[in-house]
Amino acid sequence: MSPAEILRPRQAIRDMLPYRPPTAGRDGSLRLDFNENTVGCSPCVLDALRAALDGPTLTMYPEYGKAIRELARFFGVLPDEILLTNGTDEAIQVLVHGYVEARDEVILPRPSYAMYRFYAESVGAAVREVDHRPPDLAFPLEEMLRVTGNSTRAVMIANPNNPTGAGVDLDGIERLLQAASQAAVLIDEAYFEFSGVTALPLLSRYPNLFVSRTFSKAYGLAALRIGCLFSQAGNIACLRKAQSPYSVNALAAVAARAAAGDPGYVRRYVEDVIAARKLLCRGLRNLGIRYYPSRANFVLIDVGPRAAELCCRLKGHGVLVRDRTHELPGCLRITVGTAEQVERLLGLFEELL
Amino acid sequence: MSPAEILRPRQAIRDMLPYRPPTAGRDGSLRLDFNENTVGCSPCVLDALRAALDGPTLTMYPEYGKAIRELARFFGVLPDEILLTNGTDEAIQVLVHGYVEARDEVILPRPSYAMYRFYAESVGAAVREVDHRPPDLAFPLEEMLRVTGNSTRAVMIANPNNPTGAGVDLDGIERLLQAASQAAVLIDEAYFEFSGVTALPLLSRYPNLFVSRTFSKAYGLAALRIGCLFSQAGNIACLRKAQSPYSVNALAAVAARAAAGDPGYVRRYVEDVIAARKLLCRGLRNLGIRYYPSRANFVLIDVGPRAAELCCRLKGHGVLVRDRTHELPGCLRITVGTAEQVERLLGLFEELL
Repeated sequence: MSPAEILRPRQAIRDMLPYRPPTAGRDGSLRLDFNENTVGCSPCVLDALRAALDGPTLTMYPEYGKAIRELARFFGVLPDEILLTNGTDEAIQVLVHGYVEARDEVILPRPSYAMYRFYAESVGAAVREVDHRPPDLAFPLEEMLRVTGNSTRAVMIANPNNPTGAGVDLDGIERLLQAASQAAVLIDEAYFEFSGVTALPLLSRYPNLFVSRTFSKAYGLAALRIGCLFSQAGNIACLRKAQSPYSVNALAAVAARAAAGDPGYVRRYVEDVIAARKLLCRGLRNLGIRYYPSRANFVLIDVGPRAAELCCRLKGHGVLVRDRTHELPGCLRITVGTAEQVERLLGLFEELL
Repeated sequence: MSPAEILRPRQAIRDMLPYRPPTAGRDGSLRLDFNENTVGCSPCVLDALRAALDGPTLTMYPEYGKAIRELARFFGVLPDEILLTNGTDEAIQVLVHGYVEARDEVILPRPSYAMYRFYAESVGAAVREVDHRPPDLAFPLEEMLRVTGNSTRAVMIANPNNPTGAGVDLDGIERLLQAASQAAVLIDEAYFEFSGVTALPLLSRYPNLFVSRTFSKAYGLAALRIGCLFSQAGNIACLRKAQSPYSVNALAAVAARAAAGDPGYVRRYVEDVIAARKLLCRGLRNLGIRYYPSRANFVLIDVGPRAAELCCRLKGHGVLVRDRTHELPGCLRITVGTAEQVERLLGLFEELL
C-alpha cells in the first residue's frame, strides 16, 4: 500500500517516532532488563487471583470500590485522592491529557522514562529536555528550576530516575513545585520501595503535585498493569472525568489489594535487593567497571564502546540487560534481583570482559 | 477545598460531564444490565489463566507477539491489520486520538454507546449526533449520510447498536464509508457474535474503515479488558505509534488466545442466547410489553412512566437491568442470557407489572 492511501492522522501522531520496547522471547532468560521483580509476587496475590478465577469476576466489568478504599488506606491517602491506573503509563497519559494542550511547554529530564516524552508528543506539546549533569549524571534540579516558569504546563520526573538511578530529595521537589506553580508536576515513584523517598506527605500543601506508584516493579505484577496516581481531591475528581471508566482490569485490582495485604513480602524482597545492589557495586568496582550510584533496583554501568556487544553476548548466556547506548554511550542498565543473580552476572562479566 | 485551588485542566476536560457507570455490588444478582455473558467464559480460558499463574508471566511486562498472530488468524486478517486494545474503549480512544483534533467534526448516532461521545469530547471535538428514527428507533443511516461530508473527521457506530439493538447492513456501511471518505469510520462490532454481520470483508477496499471487536460480551471476559481494532496495515502502523505500549495486560492476552482456541463454546452460548431472545420477545408480546427488535444479546423494552420504578423493584428481587430512561423515556435494556434466566425475568414482570 502506498503511503498516500493511509488515512491521514493528526499532525502530532505523524511527527512521533515508533516506540516498541524490546519485549519478546524473554521467558527462560534471567531478566535483568526491565527492572521487574526477579523472584515473583507474594503467594497471597496468587491465592487471591486463583480464588477470583473460581467466581464470576471474569465475566463482569471491573468494580473498583474496594480496591480504592483499601489502596488509599495502604498508601495513607483518602479515597478521593487516588486514581487507579492501567500501570504508571496511564497515570502519565491521564495527566498529560488532563493538563497539556498542543504547543504547551512540558519539561522533562533527559534521559528518563520514555513515556513522559511519548505522551507529551502525542498531544503535540513543546517538549523541553534538561540533561542529567555529566560526568556523574546527577539529577539536574538547578537546570530544571532555571527553565521552569509561568508558561510551563507540566513537569514530569522519575524519583529515583530511570535509567540513571539518581534521586532528588524533598527539598528539591518542593522548590520544583514552587517554581512550577502553574504546572502539573508529576513525581513518578515507580522505584519508591527501593529509595524510601516519597512526595506523598507534600500532597496536601501543593495543588499542583501528582505522585504515581506502580505494582509493576517491587510488587512483581508488571503483567497485570496496575498503578496509582495521587493528587488533591479536586484534581483527582477532574482527572477521573477524563479517564476511561474501565481501564484497570479486575484481576489487577484483585492482585493489588492482595499485595497491599502482604507488605512483609515486599519489604523482605526490597531488603534482599538493596543488599544485592551493594554486592553488585562492590563486584563492579573490583572488576574496574564504572557505575552510577543508584537508589533503585537497577544500576547503570559504563563499559565503553563494547557495551552493545556485551549486551548481546550476555543474552547468548541467558542473561538480559538493557542497552541504553542510544542515549548514554557505553551504558547498560542492570536490574538488581537476588544475591545469586548478581553473582551469576558478575561471573559472566569476569568471563566476557 | 475551594474550586479555585485545583489545578486548571484543559478546557475540553472542564467541559466534560462525569461519566461513572453504575458498577458496584453486582455480584450475587442476576446481571442483565451490562450485556455480559451470563454463564461464564470457556473452561479452556480458565485453564490457560491458571497455567499462566504458575509460570513467570505475572512479573513480566506483557508480550503480544503470539496473541497478535493467533488472533489475526482467528479473525481472518493479517497480523499487521490488528491492534490489541484494552477493551473496545481503548480502540475508540486510539482512533479518536489518532485522527480527531479539537473542533473537528465527529458524527455519532444517538442514543449509542456512551464512550464515542466521551472520547470525542475529551479531545474537544465538535460532536454532531443523529437521532435513531422514532417510532421504531431504526438505524438513522439516511440522516447520517445527509450530515456527513468533507469536514467530517470521524464517524462511530455500533453495529448492532446499543441500546436499541438496531443494525445496519453492509450496503449501508459502504455508503457511509464512501460519504465519509476523509473520515475515520469506526464500526464497533461488540455484538457481532449475535448479529453475524461484519464489515471485516470490506477492510481491503476502504482505507478509512476501522472495525472493533471485544471479548467482553459473548466471550465472557469483560473483567480482563481485551478488544481488537482492525484496519489496513498503514493505519494500524500509524495508530500503534500512538498507543500505550503495554495497555493490554498479559492475562487478557492469554485469555483471548484461549478463547479463540475454543470457538465451539461461544457458538453454543450464542445459539442459546438467540433462542432465549426469541423466548423473551414472545413473553414480552404475551405480557403486552413493547420492545424493539434486536440483533444483539439485549432487548430494549418500553414500559412507560413506571420504568425507573420497575428497574428498582427488579433489583430488589435480585435482577439487574439497565435504566435507559434518561435518553429513551420509559425504556429499560435487558441482557439476554439463558432460557432459564429469561423465564425468571418474565415471571417477575408478570408479578410486578
